[in-house]
Amino acid sequence: METQNLIGYQYIKGGKSFRAISPATGAELEAEFNAASLADVDKAMQLADKAFATYSLTDGKTKAAFLRSIADEINAIGDTLIECAMAESGLPAQRLQGERGRTTGQLNMYANLLEEGSWVDAVIDTAIPNRTPLPRIDIRKMLTAIGPAVVFGASNFPLAFSVAGGDTCSALAAGCPVVVKAHPAHPGTSALVGEAIKKAAQKHNLHEGVFSLLFDDGYTVGEALVKHPKTKIVTFTGSLKGGMALVKMAQERDEPIPVFAEMGSVNPIILLPKALENRAEELAKLSASITTNAGQFCTQPGLLLAVKSEALNKFKKALAVAIADVNSATMLTPGICANFNKLSNSVIADDAVTIIAKSDKLDAGNVNQGVAVVTEITASAFLADEKYKEEIFGPYSMLIVADDVAQLEQVVNSLHGQLTATVMAEKEELPQYKTITNKLAKLAGRVILNGPPTGVEVGNAMQHGGPYPATSDSRFTSVGTGAIKRFVRPVCWQNWDNDLLPDELKDGNPLNIWRLVNGEIAK
Amino acid sequence: METQNLIGYQYIKGGKSFRAISPATGAELEAEFNAASLADVDKAMQLADKAFATYSLTDGKTKAAFLRSIADEINAIGDTLIECAMAESGLPAQRLQGERGRTTGQLNMYANLLEEGSWVDAVIDTAIPNRTPLPRIDIRKMLTAIGPAVVFGASNFPLAFSVAGGDTCSALAAGCPVVVKAHPAHPGTSALVGEAIKKAAQKHNLHEGVFSLLFDDGYTVGEALVKHPKTKIVTFTGSLKGGMALVKMAQERDEPIPVFAEMGSVNPIILLPKALENRAEELAKLSASITTNAGQFCTQPGLLLAVKSEALNKFKKALAVAIADVNSATMLTPGICANFNKLSNSVIADDAVTIIAKSDKLDAGNVNQGVAVVTEITASAFLADEKYKEEIFGPYSMLIVADDVAQLEQVVNSLHGQLTATVMAEKEELPQYKTITNKLAKLAGRVILNGPPTGVEVGNAMQHGGPYPATSDSRFTSVGTGAIKRFVRPVCWQNWDNDLLPDELKDGNPLNIWRLVNGEIAK
Repeated sequence: METQNLIGYQYIKGGKSFRAISPATGAELEAEFNAASLADVDKAMQLADKAFATYSLTDGKTKAAFLRSIADEINAIGDTLIECAMAESGLPAQRLQGERGRTTGQLNMYANLLEEGSWVDAVIDTAIPNRTPLPRIDIRKMLTAIGPAVVFGASNFPLAFSVAGGDTCSALAAGCPVVVKAHPAHPGTSALVGEAIKKAAQKHNLHEGVFSLLFDDGYTVGEALVKHPKTKIVTFTGSLKGGMALVKMAQERDEPIPVFAEMGSVNPIILLPKALENRAEELAKLSASITTNAGQFCTQPGLLLAVKSEALNKFKKALAVAIADVNSATMLTPGICANFNKLSNSVIADDAVTIIAKSDKLDAGNVNQGVAVVTEITASAFLADEKYKEEIFGPYSMLIVADDVAQLEQVVNSLHGQLTATVMAEKEELPQYKTITNKLAKLAGRVILNGPPTGVEVGNAMQHGGPYPATSDSRFTSVGTGAIKRFVRPVCWQNWDNDLLPDELKDGNPLNIWRLVNGEIAK
Repeated sequence: METQNLIGYQYIKGGKSFRAISPATGAELEAEFNAASLADVDKAMQLADKAFATYSLTDGKTKAAFLRSIADEINAIGDTLIECAMAESGLPAQRLQGERGRTTGQLNMYANLLEEGSWVDAVIDTAIPNRTPLPRIDIRKMLTAIGPAVVFGASNFPLAFSVAGGDTCSALAAGCPVVVKAHPAHPGTSALVGEAIKKAAQKHNLHEGVFSLLFDDGYTVGEALVKHPKTKIVTFTGSLKGGMALVKMAQERDEPIPVFAEMGSVNPIILLPKALENRAEELAKLSASITTNAGQFCTQPGLLLAVKSEALNKFKKALAVAIADVNSATMLTPGICANFNKLSNSVIADDAVTIIAKSDKLDAGNVNQGVAVVTEITASAFLADEKYKEEIFGPYSMLIVADDVAQLEQVVNSLHGQLTATVMAEKEELPQYKTITNKLAKLAGRVILNGPPTGVEVGNAMQHGGPYPATSDSRFTSVGTGAIKRFVRPVCWQNWDNDLLPDELKDGNPLNIWRLVNGEIAK
């Protein structure tokens, strides 16, 4: 495996060395990586800027072929990739195989989008020379790439939100060169995928600056990347603290740039009375959404909300049984595991909080185990302390019990922005809770009826984003085809020569894409 | 005229009084206004938040009728509005009549957009229960209002970018209640238009919090509005310094919020050799774009770029003749005039700078006169000092003379982000300057061939925005139907009950709008 920093098509060793840690054993893994130097950062960004001049103008078919080649190269790595990711992340093989499928699926989805071509939102208003009082001049607008993007790999998706994950994939689709800062928890996985992207870029004779991959187990490289004058946009998936540090850095530059940070969310689930009455035990299957892969998902449900009732007691009992049976799971990093234990124990220690469900299946053969636990609190105690609204990343959830619907509504109104908000309800009871469901749609990017919030569909209709603190800008998504919008801006050409217009805007619609022409959608 | 702060449907007097100044005479105008108190700010924002719950869900037809009523009420004010705006801004009647038409035109354009309805970008992926390995669940996405908006009135468009201007209009269209901070240079104009909006809101029985109008001749009210927790988005048109101060404030809140600030631009115009050779005198008509309304437009061309030639000398002579003949014009405020004189005189005082054209028509009967002037500098001197890239707001432009095309390209590469970039060229010479024109499209939101950058068409294809420092986020526009995108975010409904979905997303497409359904655009 190439373990060096990849700058364009060159491998460069870098400085200070580090090794990944196997979260399951706590031991250092064999491969040695080296943090990039500030000169490496500059070189990667300068190359990205150079590549931008040509790559941003590359036609959709070529970009699509590039993305498909990346998918092929990732598949070509075979089991080595899964084994490496398992060792570095502690995630099971099946999950990582699924995640690889999602990663290549995303790449192919964007390839389809580029080949179809209408994503550029072409708008054409042709000239009206005899309009009064002033003639209308021909104006044509479409989305175009912003510039070099810096992508931070996420710890919890070593494939799908990392080196060739959703951010890289949508940036490359948009026409933005990408410099990835590899997550230090999975450098080997990152290196393997980085090499796959390099091979794909070479295959299509792209400017080498289209992709670089830099390592660092500290913050120096990330900071230098965000502050580099050639960087035009940054994406990040991780903690609120980490995300907001990047946003602040980006805003303090001479030229402020946008940062799309997907940060914290507790993804509330409201259990309505009739649903509890009719199917308390079925609802207890939410235990899977709470605990799968040690609950290390941005959409993991950290809050359950209900009005007290006999049916709720039945649900609690069923949930206790289900959670007791959940095996402990290796968490992604020792740091994440320590933080999970610290935060959950701190909440559990409060007088207002009781444990209603806890796993008794600890895997004693491995370290950094996340052990599932669900607590309970009264709505009034919850409302009295802001700390209960904070995300506890891991297999943990808290049931908030309200005295009545009015108090339930009060809790909903107190919540911060979310990626998702879910209602478990019988169809007939939904209309009477319209105030609450309307509020959920104001609170979250995705509202769900009768299903778990985990399992994020990658498609056209997905919105994975939401009001702060779920993300730094609720107007964008980081999953689905909409994610490309983060990396593009509209440019309009006024009275421009038809031959010199981008093909998307030319007379006769040579690319046969959907366009808004003089107010009418047409092909 | 009601001169008090308008909070919902109530007029409230406020504190410290101030009067507008007639820029033409320098004297205070009669009407007295009072700065809103912090309690007024809080009251307006709380009302806006309350209104948001219902107004954000108001159907498109009702919102459209509201916007049309605002236009009608503005027209109903009649000449009083034009006279008031003339006295406060120093702008001539004809320009203000045109601007009123643009303002009501914008309102009606958004009404059309809402009635047509497809602007919400509805995307529907229906369920595929038998998909493997996992079934696809029904997901439906559309754009929805973000929350209460704070709009800062601009000095240079007392109607079209002020109380009922493009920002207010697109925010209200999106479903966001608006609190306007009136520009202190035209409080009377603001009050008249504010009352028109109030009447329109009352006519349609909207929640009174849908609109408020606050006065202040200082910064206290603006700052309190941006920092108020109920404020979810801010728009501003004005100086780089003012815009960035708001961006910073918004980022430092507990909950950071987006600010769309349209700030500084020098709107370069490149005069290519053949165009100069063939029509130097016609090109000198750019004098109008440089000087109309004392050059107080965001798209006023502050830089002209050319390679030295005999034809360029001819252009300079023709420009000198044209500019000499331009009457001085009253500038918007004494402050703007003083700043214009200070900045232009500071540049003119430099050894590297010569005057090539200057008006000799000073209106001695009025004060605060902007007198047109065009200077010249060599490309190498221009490249040596960053200060020449700064906007000088007023009837001023600078011709940069390059030794050759390579140096011209060097100048283009050195420029900051722009709202517009223009090329004056003969069709046959354009292809050989493709590197330069490509660069212009990277630099600006709008690229123009053979026409002045001033005169911003209000339509679907317009992009009025560009890379920093032209705006704080190049991904949005403040003119045209696209401006609504600043105020909305996507929300998706997963597995939601069809009867409870917004009409835009229901089965059967009851609103008959264009939607992307399972990857196909359909009605």
